[in-house]
Amino acid sequence: MKVLVINAGSSSLKYQLYDMTDESVLAKGRVERIGMDSAILVHEPTDKQDVTEVSEILEHRTAIRKVVDMLTHPEHGVLGSINEIDAVGHRIVHGGETFSSSVVVTPEVKKEIKRLFDLAPLHNPAHMMGIEAVELNMPGVPQAVVFDTAFHQTMPAKSYMYAIPRVLYTKHKVRRYGFHGTSHFYVSRQAAEFLERPLEELKVVTCHIGNGGSVTAILDGKSFDTSMGMTPLEGLMMGTRSGDLDPAIVPFVMGKEDLTINEVNSMLNKHSGLQAISGISSDMREIETAMNEGDRNATLAFEMYEYRIRKYIGGYAAAMNGIDVLVFTAGVGENASNVRAKVCEGLSFLGIEMDEEANKIRSGDNRRISTANSKVQVLVIPTNEELVIARDTYRLIDEAGK
Amino acid sequence: MKVLVINAGSSSLKYQLYDMTDESVLAKGRVERIGMDSAILVHEPTDKQDVTEVSEILEHRTAIRKVVDMLTHPEHGVLGSINEIDAVGHRIVHGGETFSSSVVVTPEVKKEIKRLFDLAPLHNPAHMMGIEAVELNMPGVPQAVVFDTAFHQTMPAKSYMYAIPRVLYTKHKVRRYGFHGTSHFYVSRQAAEFLERPLEELKVVTCHIGNGGSVTAILDGKSFDTSMGMTPLEGLMMGTRSGDLDPAIVPFVMGKEDLTINEVNSMLNKHSGLQAISGISSDMREIETAMNEGDRNATLAFEMYEYRIRKYIGGYAAAMNGIDVLVFTAGVGENASNVRAKVCEGLSFLGIEMDEEANKIRSGDNRRISTANSKVQVLVIPTNEELVIARDTYRLIDEAGK
Repeated sequence: MKVLVINAGSSSLKYQLYDMTDESVLAKGRVERIGMDSAILVHEPTDKQDVTEVSEILEHRTAIRKVVDMLTHPEHGVLGSINEIDAVGHRIVHGGETFSSSVVVTPEVKKEIKRLFDLAPLHNPAHMMGIEAVELNMPGVPQAVVFDTAFHQTMPAKSYMYAIPRVLYTKHKVRRYGFHGTSHFYVSRQAAEFLERPLEELKVVTCHIGNGGSVTAILDGKSFDTSMGMTPLEGLMMGTRSGDLDPAIVPFVMGKEDLTINEVNSMLNKHSGLQAISGISSDMREIETAMNEGDRNATLAFEMYEYRIRKYIGGYAAAMNGIDVLVFTAGVGENASNVRAKVCEGLSFLGIEMDEEANKIRSGDNRRISTANSKVQVLVIPTNEELVIARDTYRLIDEAGK
Repeated sequence: MKVLVINAGSSSLKYQLYDMTDESVLAKGRVERIGMDSAILVHEPTDKQDVTEVSEILEHRTAIRKVVDMLTHPEHGVLGSINEIDAVGHRIVHGGETFSSSVVVTPEVKKEIKRLFDLAPLHNPAHMMGIEAVELNMPGVPQAVVFDTAFHQTMPAKSYMYAIPRVLYTKHKVRRYGFHGTSHFYVSRQAAEFLERPLEELKVVTCHIGNGGSVTAILDGKSFDTSMGMTPLEGLMMGTRSGDLDPAIVPFVMGKEDLTINEVNSMLNKHSGLQAISGISSDMREIETAMNEGDRNATLAFEMYEYRIRKYIGGYAAAMNGIDVLVFTAGVGENASNVRAKVCEGLSFLGIEMDEEANKIRSGDNRRISTANSKVQVLVIPTNEELVIARDTYRLIDEAGK
């Protein structure tokens, strides 16, 4: 069975084609600048050369058609015909309280995803365009949806409720949802497998730190608390997002600078974080380079960044009354050994004993970066959200066919 | 030397008269409903009967005059003449970045406190009315000011900076200031004294939890981080304040409910917290009563409340790479043994071993509620902000007179 995984954004679309017999990736790629005059399709078939194509792609329907054309292209393609694609799986950012697991796309599911547009106005409408573009280009091919929020639906009320008037929860669904759920789910399972211990016995804290970032407390294998909130703004300091903030700052700044709701959202989501403090970049690699050259703003940005990760880990250890395993994943988590070293240096009180050499090794494999005897096992687990989407899609479509 | 301590609010004024030869309180009291038709003065002289007087008190000048009249009253008074008051000390909520310690009131100091009105629009103007009312009623008597923020001025930048555009810090002074500094200062000193250990050797977390609440990490005797932010809204869940929140919720709710800046501030500060979740009260005693009767909303409010305190303690242990002493103070901290028990039950991973019987004892004394061998010593220390204000005022005026 072959499964196409789609991650549709408002002006971009990423794809990955899996052969589920061995979970191998046949091809992956991305379309960028959808709706702009010169859109780009980058296609990376596994055993062939990469191709880049620039053309006019005004909407998602055309984007999907171009992707299908490329996948079945005589020279660059990896499929004999579009009919070889048995199912399509989509990443959906927001599943609200409705979806606590992946589901097959039905008219009711589409209606519900539309009802959730309010909670993820930038993401869910784009995902819906992706789903409908597949329907138009590949009629009859079953689709499934996998939600970033689903894994966190196990959180207890004390974790997900905000201490604000209850009507905001009942009427507008204001609560903590959490994101990166597919990643936290995946790396926690991988961690238990790596340690050869049952996940249910472990108190795990997973740090997904990339351009966005979140920390999750996992108890009994289930999400118990997570740092992102109703939106992906809350929690850690990120590339361009502020993370935690005195909520009173929002109206204060709106008043002082005469900002609209859209402007303040844009400031906090796009012009804050590492970018704002360093004045240099939202990219941790550039921050580190500047810091090593003695740049003070970059140094402060780095310090704030690691300090906040550290406080969340401590907070979640307190949430679960202990921590057995600490996992780093995603762009920064997998690659920035200095961030990991700094975070863990300040956590030796938890019994973390780092293996400094192991921490420095760059690798795409699951690996331990603490000593084997460290009271808390510290691991780097490369995340793979696409694989989880492909697996869920395969399982759901397979079950539905029985 | 006799020192009068004043805490002036917008419609209230609390006072306490100290004899600094033995730091005894000669009288204390409060004026409420200033500016309303029937203001109330409650006067509590230490060795005489309490008095309550209802009269028209339209502004702070009259309030101070009434207090002076009462203190020198032939029957209810404790002074022969107003001239026996050697100095007046005021509590000031916001000292911005200007004041890192208490100071004698001068025209420059008054000007600076006025410049800080922006950061504490509800509090600092009221304090200024108190200072000027004393000038009018007690000309020539030296005054000092003691700031809630001063103790926290030692925080490193990584603790006090928010990850938002830097111009908001340089232009509008948006940063973490922290509050309850006088209390965190006092109880941390008392804790070290109680344990007969030098404060500089201890990693201390102090929980000031009353109607407002904040947690502070104290390293080398200095504030290293604290949960309240630019305003007293950030951090813990409080009586009527939300505490931490996804900052994106603020514009979201403003848009959905068409709220103004003032309305959303009022919602988050006055209609949130325990009150909003329990639907019953902002008072922990009433929450506990309802919880014991099986009320589910009260139970959730209690759970959220203790859970958030616990997470902050864990976070600050991570901030300092360890914790030696945990201190509870203020209304809830000193009296709510169930809150303390629940918080500490979830922190046994830190090596906290509670003495359950000691925790249940009600007392006004400094006391240990962990076992003597507990890795983290847990103490209850009744706070006394007025005494710190009296001491600072006495010291400053005494030094100025030399």
